[in-house]
Amino acid sequence: MRHVLLLNAYSANHAERLRGLLTTEWEVATALETEPTSRRDEELARADALVHSRFSDAMPQGLKLALIQTPTAGFDRIDPAALPKGCLVCNVHEHEVAIAEYVLAAMLQWVIGIADLDRRFRGGDWRGGVARLGHMHGELGGRTLGIIGHGRIGSEVARRAKAFGMRVLGVTRRPRAAPENVDRLATLDGLDALLPQCDVVLVACPLTPATRGMVDARRLALMKRGAFLINVARAAIIDEEALFVALKDGVIAGAALDVWYAYPSPEEPEVRPSRFPFHTLDTVIMTPHASAWTHELIERRWRFIAANLDRFARGEALLNVVIRDGRIVEGESAEG
Amino acid sequence: MRHVLLLNAYSANHAERLRGLLTTEWEVATALETEPTSRRDEELARADALVHSRFSDAMPQGLKLALIQTPTAGFDRIDPAALPKGCLVCNVHEHEVAIAEYVLAAMLQWVIGIADLDRRFRGGDWRGGVARLGHMHGELGGRTLGIIGHGRIGSEVARRAKAFGMRVLGVTRRPRAAPENVDRLATLDGLDALLPQCDVVLVACPLTPATRGMVDARRLALMKRGAFLINVARAAIIDEEALFVALKDGVIAGAALDVWYAYPSPEEPEVRPSRFPFHTLDTVIMTPHASAWTHELIERRWRFIAANLDRFARGEALLNVVIRDGRIVEGESAEG
Repeated sequence: MRHVLLLNAYSANHAERLRGLLTTEWEVATALETEPTSRRDEELARADALVHSRFSDAMPQGLKLALIQTPTAGFDRIDPAALPKGCLVCNVHEHEVAIAEYVLAAMLQWVIGIADLDRRFRGGDWRGGVARLGHMHGELGGRTLGIIGHGRIGSEVARRAKAFGMRVLGVTRRPRAAPENVDRLATLDGLDALLPQCDVVLVACPLTPATRGMVDARRLALMKRGAFLINVARAAIIDEEALFVALKDGVIAGAALDVWYAYPSPEEPEVRPSRFPFHTLDTVIMTPHASAWTHELIERRWRFIAANLDRFARGEALLNVVIRDGRIVEGESAEG
Repeated sequence: MRHVLLLNAYSANHAERLRGLLTTEWEVATALETEPTSRRDEELARADALVHSRFSDAMPQGLKLALIQTPTAGFDRIDPAALPKGCLVCNVHEHEVAIAEYVLAAMLQWVIGIADLDRRFRGGDWRGGVARLGHMHGELGGRTLGIIGHGRIGSEVARRAKAFGMRVLGVTRRPRAAPENVDRLATLDGLDALLPQCDVVLVACPLTPATRGMVDARRLALMKRGAFLINVARAAIIDEEALFVALKDGVIAGAALDVWYAYPSPEEPEVRPSRFPFHTLDTVIMTPHASAWTHELIERRWRFIAANLDRFARGEALLNVVIRDGRIVEGESAEG
């Protein structure tokens, strides 16, 4: 029987679920980093497959591991050079629906502000409605959305934005014809031309050396003063100081930020997410990297992981191979 | 030259806009209820068309008025029997896009709660995201939406809900085949069968003797315990006490309410919108009849009004005729 090891608490918690989903014969073992290394190493030595997001040369040598399946999209903490010979790495996505819903929720909160209407109305304030003329809100329909990075997330956002009657523009790494629901798609060098046209700009591209700091002070200044910026990708794609200054000074009108420049650690469990006080700006919607974090995401991911292990057991081609022969595989995984 | 009178502050405020939009020759006059009745009556006597939402037998006799164009969808304060002979009444919609956006915003606030994530995260709380496992939110995709009253609003909501991957069911007055974006459409007598299937129920039908109190305690109990109810139509379609009790006791999980059982008056400008304390329930999203109240709505409505006056001036058929020959016209105006 084949052995798969689920390493660490997050994966280990889903062992029962995985056993229920697998249709091929597997022994599903679990180990925690808090256990003695010797037990973890014993389990590793027996494993044909490992479900984990990290692998380095601190791991034991001579493993027979043929597959590392990450339980997340990110595989940047797996060192390709440290992998056992022939070991494939597959990742998992399934977050695009959740993130697209978050993006639409952020845009609607921006134009309508239903939570603010609710808060004021509970106090007896009828303003903002037909009974007391005055404050009106806005609509998404007819506005222009620009998507930076047209991968899985961009596609799901575009489909929903089109149903709202938005114009959808995009820039992406690889030149190709505009896909469904996109009015015009350019390559990344078209970014400067895209920005001044957009009422909403969505950052949904991977963080690479080319995209790090790509949205800087100059590009923020190219955006409309009334524009709204959304980042669901990686914080470092937008220059931290330039973003804070642009929001504080009204260079752009607002932002929804779900990804951050600092994350909590055991030492700083409530660390501020930036060295700048974004939490003092009322034009920002700020969330704790929560956009994908749904019950349904977990369900879909473990179904995918089980199906990939089934494929492995049956000798079929695996889905979402991201590292093969010690090299990151371009083109086998979609952007975003 | 033809004369059109804009009566009262809301319409009078848009006189300049209307003049800019008309392409036929009109004298656009305004009068306020606060002015002496004699001046209003002089203007009324000259008017070929009146833009106003009220007409009763308190108005002067013998007017030559041939058209009353309401600046709103509602025309229930126009007494058909009081109209000058031959005078048509047309209403205006154009609110369906704004209301559909509100409905999606409410559903997304319900499943994601982006405003709550924001509030907590500003205080340093990373829960709800990937950095601090624990609380997860939900998705709209795959859930079932039931729409009561499949008119203009229902259609616009269905289109957006489908793009989110929702299953869409509906009940409506007139039997017909399921339109685009609706998986199954039944007549109103199918309501009891619809309710237990839905994760979200949207009330979007007109208030009529048949729909008043239609969603009562018995029907609320037919809904799923986890269901979310949205009312953007008229409050009285849902029994006031039954709704409060169902929310308080968890018979249903939550509601977004934009229409109310009491509205402000000069005597009570901050009147509570119900005799029950909905504002004490945190499972309710409550807004002050604000769903349609957008800048774009006003723009579209006055464009429609100008176009209808142009049609009148050119002797063409008018759009949205709701009263003809002193009778409310069925079938010429869409539901919702």
